[in-house]
Amino acid sequence: MIQKYRYGHPFETEAVIMPVKDTLGTPDFLTVSNKDTLIFSYEMDKADIVYGLGEANRGINKRGFCYKSFCTDQTTHSEEKQSLYGAHNFLLIKGKRSFGLFVDYPGLVTFDIGYTRLNLLTIEVPDANLNLYIITGPSLLSITEQFRTLIGRSYIPPYFAFGFGQSRWGYQNATDVTAVANGYQSHDLPLDMIYLDIDYMDHYKDFTVNTERFPDFPHFTKTMKERGIRLIPIIDAGVKIEDGYSIYEEGKEHGYFCKKEDGDFFTAGVWPGRTHFPDVLNKEAREWFGSKYEFLISQGIDGFWNDMNEPAMFYSDEGIADLLQSVFSIDLASCHADDMLALRDKINSLSNRLNDYKLFYHNVNGTPVRHDTVHNLYGYNMTRAASEGFEKIAPNKRFLLFSRSSYIGMHRYGGIWTGDNSSWWSHLLLNIKMMPSLNMCGFLYSGADLGGFACDTTKDLLLRFLAFGIFTPLMRNHSAIGTRNQECYQFENCEDFKGILRLRYRLIPYLYSEFVKAALHNRMLFMPLGFLYEDDTTASHIEDQLLFADGLMLAPVYEPNAIGRHVYLPEDMLYLKFTSEDTYEAVPLKKGHHYIEVSLTEVPIFLRKNHFLLLANAADCTANLDNTTFTLIGEKASSGTLTLYRDNGFEKDYDNPSHYTTIQITNGVITTSDPSLHLTAELY
Amino acid sequence: MIQKYRYGHPFETEAVIMPVKDTLGTPDFLTVSNKDTLIFSYEMDKADIVYGLGEANRGINKRGFCYKSFCTDQTTHSEEKQSLYGAHNFLLIKGKRSFGLFVDYPGLVTFDIGYTRLNLLTIEVPDANLNLYIITGPSLLSITEQFRTLIGRSYIPPYFAFGFGQSRWGYQNATDVTAVANGYQSHDLPLDMIYLDIDYMDHYKDFTVNTERFPDFPHFTKTMKERGIRLIPIIDAGVKIEDGYSIYEEGKEHGYFCKKEDGDFFTAGVWPGRTHFPDVLNKEAREWFGSKYEFLISQGIDGFWNDMNEPAMFYSDEGIADLLQSVFSIDLASCHADDMLALRDKINSLSNRLNDYKLFYHNVNGTPVRHDTVHNLYGYNMTRAASEGFEKIAPNKRFLLFSRSSYIGMHRYGGIWTGDNSSWWSHLLLNIKMMPSLNMCGFLYSGADLGGFACDTTKDLLLRFLAFGIFTPLMRNHSAIGTRNQECYQFENCEDFKGILRLRYRLIPYLYSEFVKAALHNRMLFMPLGFLYEDDTTASHIEDQLLFADGLMLAPVYEPNAIGRHVYLPEDMLYLKFTSEDTYEAVPLKKGHHYIEVSLTEVPIFLRKNHFLLLANAADCTANLDNTTFTLIGEKASSGTLTLYRDNGFEKDYDNPSHYTTIQITNGVITTSDPSLHLTAELY
Repeated sequence: MIQKYRYGHPFETEAVIMPVKDTLGTPDFLTVSNKDTLIFSYEMDKADIVYGLGEANRGINKRGFCYKSFCTDQTTHSEEKQSLYGAHNFLLIKGKRSFGLFVDYPGLVTFDIGYTRLNLLTIEVPDANLNLYIITGPSLLSITEQFRTLIGRSYIPPYFAFGFGQSRWGYQNATDVTAVANGYQSHDLPLDMIYLDIDYMDHYKDFTVNTERFPDFPHFTKTMKERGIRLIPIIDAGVKIEDGYSIYEEGKEHGYFCKKEDGDFFTAGVWPGRTHFPDVLNKEAREWFGSKYEFLISQGIDGFWNDMNEPAMFYSDEGIADLLQSVFSIDLASCHADDMLALRDKINSLSNRLNDYKLFYHNVNGTPVRHDTVHNLYGYNMTRAASEGFEKIAPNKRFLLFSRSSYIGMHRYGGIWTGDNSSWWSHLLLNIKMMPSLNMCGFLYSGADLGGFACDTTKDLLLRFLAFGIFTPLMRNHSAIGTRNQECYQFENCEDFKGILRLRYRLIPYLYSEFVKAALHNRMLFMPLGFLYEDDTTASHIEDQLLFADGLMLAPVYEPNAIGRHVYLPEDMLYLKFTSEDTYEAVPLKKGHHYIEVSLTEVPIFLRKNHFLLLANAADCTANLDNTTFTLIGEKASSGTLTLYRDNGFEKDYDNPSHYTTIQITNGVITTSDPSLHLTAELY
Repeated sequence: MIQKYRYGHPFETEAVIMPVKDTLGTPDFLTVSNKDTLIFSYEMDKADIVYGLGEANRGINKRGFCYKSFCTDQTTHSEEKQSLYGAHNFLLIKGKRSFGLFVDYPGLVTFDIGYTRLNLLTIEVPDANLNLYIITGPSLLSITEQFRTLIGRSYIPPYFAFGFGQSRWGYQNATDVTAVANGYQSHDLPLDMIYLDIDYMDHYKDFTVNTERFPDFPHFTKTMKERGIRLIPIIDAGVKIEDGYSIYEEGKEHGYFCKKEDGDFFTAGVWPGRTHFPDVLNKEAREWFGSKYEFLISQGIDGFWNDMNEPAMFYSDEGIADLLQSVFSIDLASCHADDMLALRDKINSLSNRLNDYKLFYHNVNGTPVRHDTVHNLYGYNMTRAASEGFEKIAPNKRFLLFSRSSYIGMHRYGGIWTGDNSSWWSHLLLNIKMMPSLNMCGFLYSGADLGGFACDTTKDLLLRFLAFGIFTPLMRNHSAIGTRNQECYQFENCEDFKGILRLRYRLIPYLYSEFVKAALHNRMLFMPLGFLYEDDTTASHIEDQLLFADGLMLAPVYEPNAIGRHVYLPEDMLYLKFTSEDTYEAVPLKKGHHYIEVSLTEVPIFLRKNHFLLLANAADCTANLDNTTFTLIGEKASSGTLTLYRDNGFEKDYDNPSHYTTIQITNGVITTSDPSLHLTAELY
């Protein structure tokens, strides 16, 4: 059951698409105090588990920390960081009372989940205008499904988006990009996408291509596509201020940029230097910005990633003025340490200042709305702009689209990547922990920068990252300029990567099928163990194993120099130890605690009873995957139905019943609704 | 066997105290290349484990990363950091060939341990003047013991230093300090020390006390000592430039500060503003600086911590000049992002610049030695200055002394704390991993800032930190100004801390005894499991369990919201689950993998067969510990000898045979060499 409590006059975020009638008052188990801010309090039981918050730091269980929903360009995801790029205000409490809670509010929300007091949850909102949804149901899965129904169907990308992508900030030109394609293909390492970071543009101007670096871009995209590789360019939020640059001129002419109180456009420094922000909360401006993607689509581009859309800013004109004042006020002759430290703090706080977010306004249906009060909607609406633009440009075609910043609601328009992580082993674990939280909030097409974005990676870290990453829908290796080259072929004995990457391709039809079904039916792809084994206390506290769809359990190795790991089985399972893409050992394991050895090139997969794993033959790109010939792996004693979803992968007729094929396995006998399937069973 | 290979003309670091004859050539299993730099290479076996490096980042097994021995004021110990505060150039390789390796070189040394290539170890030294020691022996323990013999007996602190200490940067005055004493004692939480950070000084001037904040310091120290609490003040490296300040005037007059090439004193900005660095590599200057501790000792002080002695600097005069040039060269009208980012980088790199370390010189027996070439000896010799000063001030008295920066050799003069960690769960794990590495390098009196120095802690993190910290010789809760109050009594239900803190006091006689024996006999206090169970591959790869002395195994919980953890037993053990300081369950567990539940207030201890745990009665401070009445815990079937070391705790006659008491347990019958002991056995 979903109950909606309205406080004051909420801003319409369009996060929710299902109409729900207002319930008067406040849920009786919450305490509300309403002085300067609105604070909801809930006394947790010691044993309660708190799930949720989507793209947030820390664990699957969010207890023991204070989180701030305020989309932030967070360059270092260290443990104390309270905000990342997204604002996903959904909590799911399991315990003496189990319920879901969604705070639909577009500004800062603070979640103190046992930080101040171990057993106290408080949610603080700076003003009293918001919608609060409380969801109850017979199980955690039911509550999640209801919430997902409330917020609407998740974005479904094209089939190729399930291939492996290589990215790096620093590919300067067609030669660099070609070298990446060659590096992968010459080593028999599959690849579907190469991402173009900011360097492909002309002076970081949106919707331009640097023609010195890419002399014939349409021809280049075509050539790459013939090799099975799509180019996926980045689009940033800020539009460069430059006379004669058409996007700038048009935006200026029509007033499509965010304005200050005095009516002037607000200026922020980002990659191109001084820029204006398109007012994506203004319907007309959003339509205009979305239409601009056509420039690249017409040159053969099938996907984009939207970046810097918190919106990030390095500085504002106002911030620079403040800074200079500080510099000039220092008396260097008697220079005290505190002065220098204050100056350093000042310059380090120049970026993404809250004060700057208070300086500009959106035009929402003719009403000026100060940015900070709706801050969390910016990335959402930039991505919506793109999606709505695609809809007009090619109505029945699916585009790859994901964003850095997001709010719940954006999950209908695109995916997200989890931003600028580091080549840290702890960030591989963070990647694992974040996936189910994202799924709860509707973000199914998602993944981390495998290998780590910032800092220098190592081969073993990249191998372990990939061994988990082959299960994330968005599977991308991405790194920052100035760090160690991170493409798989850059490492000695790069054939060590082959088994893992090619196993991804064997998994794609299964991943795709499970993904689309999860999207269409508002289900989870990655689940905490506690979602399925609610009464199993041990399972419920496990933070480093996940369920994948209905049938699999994952237990990745995420520690340096480990030769294996402990794993807990909440029920008997078949342990599949993949030593390469097409060799594996199948070992039945009993419910309970186990230690498994996992070498750097191996992938452990656990298969639940009465479930089956479906594998295709490996291929070098998604286009070459055979979608009719599969291997089915399971236990002889298992019986069950595997529903396989297949479509052409680029059109939008998702609900066509012909896309479903059932495969029924009973006592080792396989029957299927599609007689043209070639199925080989490997039963143990 | 120890072999010494001399290259060129090494600087005498005095790390080694045992004479070893030179061996000609180079060890045959190392490749040496000698072009611009000296590089030793070793091809590791895939299964080799590399221990060592003392205070270094990452794991017990150091493989998979590149470390730089260059003492650094590292404010954030994130995973990519290559240098921390100490330089401990000892490696211990276990595998196809097991050996110890010590690079005795006082400047930058780079250890690439499988970073560039998974199986390649390289050690790079910028010039060809160094001593290389290779140590072989029948076991890892034998190699370590030989190395420790080579470098000399570890520092032994007074008995009170094994008590619990509370610290915080931000205790402003006697009132604040008194509140800490009251906070602990009124809640029946034991305490032996309160640390004074920089705020006790007059304008951060070494060897001064701010008399406004502490109107009668000698009386105050006396009053606190009567309550069982000692005050432990900080001493920083930089001496404030201030006319009339006696330390500055004396140092200037005698030329005891580090000088630039032109003969002027080098100036660096630190807490007091502009300072000079005492030239602690100059024997006379060291003697002078060491004598200054008398100022505080005469006021009742029994211990010190030496800080900022990498030496840390916020800026140099030269650095400020560079910075201003950059600021003035920016054209703000057309300000480009790159300019702002460059400026930010510039100001952020103002601190601890390598270039600044090249600007000043030490006077070593009349010869000027450029600082960067002997950089890693600074903290070492500052601490040596203090220790040698104490020796003159009170020859037979032990002082508490530890340092932030260090080099091997300093372990004879003082301990170290592991610097400015953060309130991160991963730093609790780092604390665990670092302890055995420190012990290998001679640093026995050591510990981390429990609860975390930077960032806001939480009650659960502090509880888990303390549950491990009760085993570290230096047990201190320390936090930074501006962070959440971190004293145990600041949290709701602070009686939750009582059991853990009081268990520490029950353990002290045993910890002290094991500590002193380890120091006197060059043994390890904390050991990786692989040191004792060399043939057990699983044990050898465990990074989150430690052996403590001969008899105990520790398996701390270090993850948020965990209700327990997996633990591996390399042999049958008795699991002691302490639910408070004097209640525990004793459960015999078999060799193998287990899962144990551990609540936030519990401490798990594993006892080996034929070993016994000795516990005193709890007390509120070390002075009130009864050193004759003990409980012995063990298994009925166990037989063995526990050698108990006891002395008066403040004098230096360590080797007096009367300090040893043997307790023999055979078939449940206890005999002891000291009939006045009161022993109660609890055998299972």
